[in-house]
Amino acid sequence: MKVIELTPPYLIFLGDVKDPTYAKTGAGLAQWRPEQCLGQLSLVDDGIDLGLPTLSIAEAAEQGVRSLIIGTASIGGGIPDSWLPTLLQAVEAGLEIVAGVHSTLASHPLLSAAARAAGTRLVDVRVPPAGIPVATGKKRSGLRLLTVGTDCAVGKKYTALALERAMCEAGFNARFRASGQTGIMITGEGMPIDSVVADFISGAAELLSPANSPDHWDVVEGQGCLTHPGYAAVSTGLLLGSQPDAFVVCHEAGRTHISGWEDFPLAPIAEVIERTVAVGAITNPTIRCVGISVNTSRLAADEIPDYLQELEAELGLPCFDPLREIPQALLDSLQAMTVTTTAKEATS
Amino acid sequence: MKVIELTPPYLIFLGDVKDPTYAKTGAGLAQWRPEQCLGQLSLVDDGIDLGLPTLSIAEAAEQGVRSLIIGTASIGGGIPDSWLPTLLQAVEAGLEIVAGVHSTLASHPLLSAAARAAGTRLVDVRVPPAGIPVATGKKRSGLRLLTVGTDCAVGKKYTALALERAMCEAGFNARFRASGQTGIMITGEGMPIDSVVADFISGAAELLSPANSPDHWDVVEGQGCLTHPGYAAVSTGLLLGSQPDAFVVCHEAGRTHISGWEDFPLAPIAEVIERTVAVGAITNPTIRCVGISVNTSRLAADEIPDYLQELEAELGLPCFDPLREIPQALLDSLQAMTVTTTAKEATS
Repeated sequence: MKVIELTPPYLIFLGDVKDPTYAKTGAGLAQWRPEQCLGQLSLVDDGIDLGLPTLSIAEAAEQGVRSLIIGTASIGGGIPDSWLPTLLQAVEAGLEIVAGVHSTLASHPLLSAAARAAGTRLVDVRVPPAGIPVATGKKRSGLRLLTVGTDCAVGKKYTALALERAMCEAGFNARFRASGQTGIMITGEGMPIDSVVADFISGAAELLSPANSPDHWDVVEGQGCLTHPGYAAVSTGLLLGSQPDAFVVCHEAGRTHISGWEDFPLAPIAEVIERTVAVGAITNPTIRCVGISVNTSRLAADEIPDYLQELEAELGLPCFDPLREIPQALLDSLQAMTVTTTAKEATS
Repeated sequence: MKVIELTPPYLIFLGDVKDPTYAKTGAGLAQWRPEQCLGQLSLVDDGIDLGLPTLSIAEAAEQGVRSLIIGTASIGGGIPDSWLPTLLQAVEAGLEIVAGVHSTLASHPLLSAAARAAGTRLVDVRVPPAGIPVATGKKRSGLRLLTVGTDCAVGKKYTALALERAMCEAGFNARFRASGQTGIMITGEGMPIDSVVADFISGAAELLSPANSPDHWDVVEGQGCLTHPGYAAVSTGLLLGSQPDAFVVCHEAGRTHISGWEDFPLAPIAEVIERTVAVGAITNPTIRCVGISVNTSRLAADEIPDYLQELEAELGLPCFDPLREIPQALLDSLQAMTVTTTAKEATS
């Protein structure tokens, strides 16, 4: 196993959480992979409702659920004692437990003893797999698109998922590749790139999007941004290892500074494009920007079309709100790249 | 403790190694910190001689040695059984053991049990300290110089040590800051930056060169290079966290490709300068290149002056062989920066 892999189908565990902002993982799963979510389980009557059937552990096991996914964050980041009886019951029923909590499942003495006894796995999606090599930089067959950002938390994961969906609907051979814990839980596999040891970041990115058929697109979830004072190293390593042929810049309309680092203004989108090409060209000289994805949540509905049109005029690239639509012009340019690449590989 | 710290004075342990290329750490210590090396200990008659007095463990302990430093690499990277009796004797005599081996000292059952019993430390210089934060990007007082490279293993550590020595001799308030295991062993403290988890690389670099008096120079040992397909993420994170005011580009004359990645030509020095400024300016807008350090080991002695003069004419910067001399022009420009900075901090 070279990347983290989960075992579907899932029961989404929501703990005793009532505030939906703490249930992003569960909500993401229900939105993007509903076919793999057989049910939900909340410990409280007025808990979060993802619109899935409510199942007990016994019912879930009976219906073929293979993994319980902890779909909420707890205050403090650990496993509250009030969750334990349910998690232990799931382990005893042979379910794997999946979590992205800070203190790992594996370090919990009761859970790890129970999992050993039951012969089932505890999957900590923040813990990278062992044996990640240093990146080779060698070109791999197949095509890759990376979502990059003007900051953290601007919609890189959402954009990549929306692109995968639109590409598959348009007949592309495309697959989302998760580089963060929520993405890994949504898609069932991936690489927690920000938890990898420094020397191996680009090697981890190479594992995440392995060689594939010439017409295949990996749509890689980006992390951080190249101008981030804290996280730019992660973004750099992911970019070099992903070797993207195409990238989409993700931006939140109205954001002016790096969130949490208010002394640092956001780089203009044109500068982000320039920096991404400068670094990305080291491992893929033909890298190019194919579009701008805008998180428009701070804009009024009637401001959105003007905002996108002005940006499009300024940058000469398709600009879009991924909640609304993936523009045909972007899909067309990816299609043209697919044709060129498959023709080149067929004659080489 | 925020960075790794060793306890001098030292006994340099050379194992049963006979080939000096495997004793770089020991040789570096004897060269750069002779006053802290009370002796050497080899297990074989025709072993490596660093020119230090030969001491048994008992003699070393008697003379006040506090740490045994493993100054050689073993074949395989671990602790050979033939070394164990001596290391255990050192632990029992209360010495700390320091190593940069791949399989850690702490994971060796006999050594770790003996160290616990004797109440002494095993120091693995590849293991970063706990609790490294994400970088803040906030400007710290004091001045910083970083050695960057056109590749790995071109003389970044050597150049930084030679700069520290020349600066101190010229009356600067300067200190070498080690970012790799050999440098940490030589200087007795530092941060193994390539072993830090991705999210914390720049934070680790911030810890390595903390706030200091306005006239103080940290001379930070660089790692990798910004165009390296495997290690650029480490170089990027170290550059952003170090926030250097000045940098020196290190290059090996005659090297044409990234060593071990032969598909990747070296970037020209001018491009390395440009990329270093572009990234470094994110956290320090006044960053600038102050010189080029050339490893001339592949050149004939009579080729060296011409090579350096041509480079100097091309780049308009002091170009030097750090084995020979640190140019006065470089020291002068650092002195001018010191004056400007201390004057600015005095009036602010």
